[in-house]
Amino acid sequence: MQALRSREPHRVVISRVYPVIDGGRYPVKRVVGESLEVEASIFADGHDRISAVLEWRYQEEPWQQVPMIPLGNDRWRARFDVMATGQFSYRIRGWVDPYRTWRAHVDSFLMAEMKLAGVVWMEGIREVLEMAQKVPSQKLSRSLREWTDRFAEPNEVALALEQLDALMKDVVVIPHAPTEVPDGQPGFPVWVDPLDAQFTTWYEFFPRSAGVVPGIHGTFADVRARLPYVADLGFSVVYLPPIHPIGESFRKGRRNARQAAPHDPGSPWAIGGKAGGHMAIHPALGTFEDFDALVREARDRGLFIALDLAFQCSPDHPWVEEHPEWFRIRADGSIQFAENPPKKYEDIVPFNFESEAWPSLWEALYGVVEFWIAHGVRYFRVDNPHTKSLYFWEWLLQKVKMAHPDVVFLAEAFTRPAVMQHLAKVGFSQSYTYFTWRNSARELRHYVEELVASPEVDYFRPSFWPNTPDILPESLQVGGRAAFIARLALAATLSASYGIYGPLFELMVKTPSPNQKEEYDDSEKYRIAHWDWDRPDSLSPWITRVNQFRREHPALWSNRTIQFHPVDNDQLLVYSKVTPGATDVVLMVVNMDLRYRQSGFLTLPVQDWGLAPDEDFIVSDALSGSSYVWHGSRNYVELDPARLPAHLFHVKRKI
Amino acid sequence: MQALRSREPHRVVISRVYPVIDGGRYPVKRVVGESLEVEASIFADGHDRISAVLEWRYQEEPWQQVPMIPLGNDRWRARFDVMATGQFSYRIRGWVDPYRTWRAHVDSFLMAEMKLAGVVWMEGIREVLEMAQKVPSQKLSRSLREWTDRFAEPNEVALALEQLDALMKDVVVIPHAPTEVPDGQPGFPVWVDPLDAQFTTWYEFFPRSAGVVPGIHGTFADVRARLPYVADLGFSVVYLPPIHPIGESFRKGRRNARQAAPHDPGSPWAIGGKAGGHMAIHPALGTFEDFDALVREARDRGLFIALDLAFQCSPDHPWVEEHPEWFRIRADGSIQFAENPPKKYEDIVPFNFESEAWPSLWEALYGVVEFWIAHGVRYFRVDNPHTKSLYFWEWLLQKVKMAHPDVVFLAEAFTRPAVMQHLAKVGFSQSYTYFTWRNSARELRHYVEELVASPEVDYFRPSFWPNTPDILPESLQVGGRAAFIARLALAATLSASYGIYGPLFELMVKTPSPNQKEEYDDSEKYRIAHWDWDRPDSLSPWITRVNQFRREHPALWSNRTIQFHPVDNDQLLVYSKVTPGATDVVLMVVNMDLRYRQSGFLTLPVQDWGLAPDEDFIVSDALSGSSYVWHGSRNYVELDPARLPAHLFHVKRKI
Repeated sequence: MQALRSREPHRVVISRVYPVIDGGRYPVKRVVGESLEVEASIFADGHDRISAVLEWRYQEEPWQQVPMIPLGNDRWRARFDVMATGQFSYRIRGWVDPYRTWRAHVDSFLMAEMKLAGVVWMEGIREVLEMAQKVPSQKLSRSLREWTDRFAEPNEVALALEQLDALMKDVVVIPHAPTEVPDGQPGFPVWVDPLDAQFTTWYEFFPRSAGVVPGIHGTFADVRARLPYVADLGFSVVYLPPIHPIGESFRKGRRNARQAAPHDPGSPWAIGGKAGGHMAIHPALGTFEDFDALVREARDRGLFIALDLAFQCSPDHPWVEEHPEWFRIRADGSIQFAENPPKKYEDIVPFNFESEAWPSLWEALYGVVEFWIAHGVRYFRVDNPHTKSLYFWEWLLQKVKMAHPDVVFLAEAFTRPAVMQHLAKVGFSQSYTYFTWRNSARELRHYVEELVASPEVDYFRPSFWPNTPDILPESLQVGGRAAFIARLALAATLSASYGIYGPLFELMVKTPSPNQKEEYDDSEKYRIAHWDWDRPDSLSPWITRVNQFRREHPALWSNRTIQFHPVDNDQLLVYSKVTPGATDVVLMVVNMDLRYRQSGFLTLPVQDWGLAPDEDFIVSDALSGSSYVWHGSRNYVELDPARLPAHLFHVKRKI
Repeated sequence: MQALRSREPHRVVISRVYPVIDGGRYPVKRVVGESLEVEASIFADGHDRISAVLEWRYQEEPWQQVPMIPLGNDRWRARFDVMATGQFSYRIRGWVDPYRTWRAHVDSFLMAEMKLAGVVWMEGIREVLEMAQKVPSQKLSRSLREWTDRFAEPNEVALALEQLDALMKDVVVIPHAPTEVPDGQPGFPVWVDPLDAQFTTWYEFFPRSAGVVPGIHGTFADVRARLPYVADLGFSVVYLPPIHPIGESFRKGRRNARQAAPHDPGSPWAIGGKAGGHMAIHPALGTFEDFDALVREARDRGLFIALDLAFQCSPDHPWVEEHPEWFRIRADGSIQFAENPPKKYEDIVPFNFESEAWPSLWEALYGVVEFWIAHGVRYFRVDNPHTKSLYFWEWLLQKVKMAHPDVVFLAEAFTRPAVMQHLAKVGFSQSYTYFTWRNSARELRHYVEELVASPEVDYFRPSFWPNTPDILPESLQVGGRAAFIARLALAATLSASYGIYGPLFELMVKTPSPNQKEEYDDSEKYRIAHWDWDRPDSLSPWITRVNQFRREHPALWSNRTIQFHPVDNDQLLVYSKVTPGATDVVLMVVNMDLRYRQSGFLTLPVQDWGLAPDEDFIVSDALSGSSYVWHGSRNYVELDPARLPAHLFHVKRKI
């Protein structure tokens, strides 16, 4: 009997709510200015009419309501705009609507050309009077009551109903009705990031290689001197590998040699030495004043400085002595170093995230993030997050983002899909991807379609990188200049976030390490390098054009609308992105054959773009600067990699 | 800080559990003797080895454990058999496995041909000793400790590890590890029905038309006299339209006339009169003794009697006077009758499931079900459940099934997919479907593939009906004898549950009502009919063969394994069902063209059936009695509707 008494006699069922991640356990992601479109199956028994509202709120503010619209087949939809960063929630409420049910009943009499019995009118009046009691407007309530007096015996049915409908238009009385929410939560969670958490153009370089004199350790001042270059290329974020003191014990030499030579600087990821750990700066780079000045100047130039969160220590990190309880102690009493036989990383000691002392460890690492946020850092690239507790990240990211909703975390997790997806669910803003190894048109299309499919598209934001200090992919080693331009164009337009590791990318460095075939020869990870950033054959002019194309076209700021289009040549990849309402349309054509000219006819959904099926329109290429007049849905393209392997078209109506 | 302190440092994540209905809110369905195969994504950070178990229990019995097996890409699987009716639960537990992690570490040293450092052995010994403390077997624990003494400095690594692995094989120590369960529940729910809740062969007929003298109201004794006939045809359930007293007010006449003639019997669905309501028997049918005798004799013949739960009243139902609070009162004080303008059903008064008095109404209706269960009824066909509160059904079905897990409810809900699916989720064992209106090979294939797709296949059990008292589909009106046989063969083999409305089906009655084009002319719903059940051209011999084929082939007792096969003729529908392990294989070929001979080559997955790709095998047709020797995957078929429109093949190895 308990169950019966405690349950109200509801009639409306709400199910198959979209978008929802893992039943509401993790938030759906959006960026400021986007809207969230919610769909659900909403129905009741019988033939009565139902109504439904989408209720949403920002943080703890009052709930707001948007009427849901039936799409047919019991699916309903509504949307709301998210105009601030932080936590939103939504829920759905549905109920049997007595007035609409009565009106549908009346209409069915009228359609059947049957006379309306007096009792039908009386029932309508009863419903209207009941509603009148509940409406907050006294004027409206009075009008409704007047209507019931005048039309108790109406002679002109059509007029009476018209007047009533007009009055009832403003009456929304939502009864106590069931809401569909995840168990124990007020609503389905939505996390809203700033736009630049999704639309990010990353440029990575080693500060110590930024000096002007070959062999001399670069400084923050040298990094500042490079900012105009990076800003001119059109990037939005400058990501620096770890800037902390580097350990000396077991320091690696050039080319990852087990023994460092006397002046070898070591790997920046072997964090911590006499000068401090994760909250210290490598003395050769400069001081906190220098760092703060770098952050300020970057902001003045429209750039953000991104730091590397590598939660691991060198054996010389002060924490190793101060907090041995945070590390794994081996059976012989030594501290466990990183090891993946036959590889050994004696210069790195991992944290033990499940040690007895985990609470103090987790808090200390949280302190590291807060420390750098206080120094003006908004972007963090996180080193190998998949080798640290996933529950730790969930806790850390939630804590940081509640306090600083504009902070962005990029996960460097090159691992299995389930783990990469989970990191995105627990709060990483962006993630590295398999793009680096997807080469053919078919592979890229399948991969991107996977990323923009539901539910991934609602929580996983890809960042496409043609190269990183760890990865010189085969595509760049063998394809020449055309390969670099093609991979750049693909990364920058397939994904709203992309990045390059420079200046090796624009200088087309492509010699692989003899042992590690997809790594750079004589990697910067183990030495101070020196580059001729202004070499005449640098790709920098092309990068500038690509990044300008990205900035000018809001269609490229999201991946949600990407569509691949048919073309009668397998070597060509054709895809478009559009803004809502097709106010901005861009079309990309990339020749995946880096040796030979390829051509073909492509088929475009011109009507979705607001063009007539047989209309002339203009496509203007941001790379070559050329424009073409095209006609209708079927058009010819030809790309010669010896000139340029890609078109980045803006699709415009002919005036 | 609260959040940090209250969370344990877990490492394993469990997600994407399958099968789950609406996040665990509704149970997955199985029948006794089936197994439940559970899959989930299970992973941890880093490279440590994990283990996982599927935990399951019957009702409140202790949890049992089955090791889960990794399938690759972080998916894991395990299964358990459900050998009783009622509620099962399952949940998943995963943890980092220190012993397996250490063994993998050792293996990576061996693979790299590196010497095992003493400390590695020490760590293994540490893990083993820790495990030894936890194993319940003293002997095993002692063996493990002895091993650590003997092999502290092992000389023969391979031998030492072999011995250790042998000892550890029986050690399963499951730490306190996270389980994946729905919020607030002990596990994901599974409801297990008896096999005959899924594999049901329904035969419907009107008791009042079962009499031997034309025009004289049939009795339960007449129904008993028909039981040998129904049993010989091979049915398992005899479903009787409502057997209760019929109202006299506004009684409908023949052909749904608004005025009944003096001797018109009225519609059995206008339940309730002077002689009582839902717990009374129509006086002309007999007494409770007669009914009980009918139920007993049916059981003796391997049949069950199914009743019709039509939760509505005639205006003469005793409850209308006794409980006006259970009905909807119109504005003029009258009780609302059923109405769907221009149609009026003045002979029927619906209940108001959301009236103030809903708790007593719901309890009374529950009482009706219990009443008939007490009279030996196990099967209920529920009339229009979609016009009664969906929450009522959820409450009622749960209550009945907890007390009587073998009771079967068939939902007569011809309505929108979301509502039909919801009725299945809340506990209906089976549901009528759109089969009645799916005619072409393509339509049928798509519809069945939809029904056996996830998640529908795990909670929605279709019942295919070629005809009902309400529906004489166009296919039967125009297709002649071949149409009746084809629709019978399709219903009986596409779906584990099917039924016919007889004897009109086997007598091929096909005259439609002039006004209602898919209804029977002069419907039995409004009159006492009389049939020549033993007419020489009756389809009864074919029905007997089809039902015998169903009974003899366990492959047909479920829909889960159905597969459609390619054939180079669009008019042929080819599909198979198999038991697990392919111990039973049946293959159906139906000619959907009811006029012309059709032939074609079909392609069969013979290797999935345990046959060699070029092996001879035998297909023997249960309809024609013919057998053919076929060879390999590609074979020829030809069906002439003038003879038989279908093959129902048993696929057998040639001996």
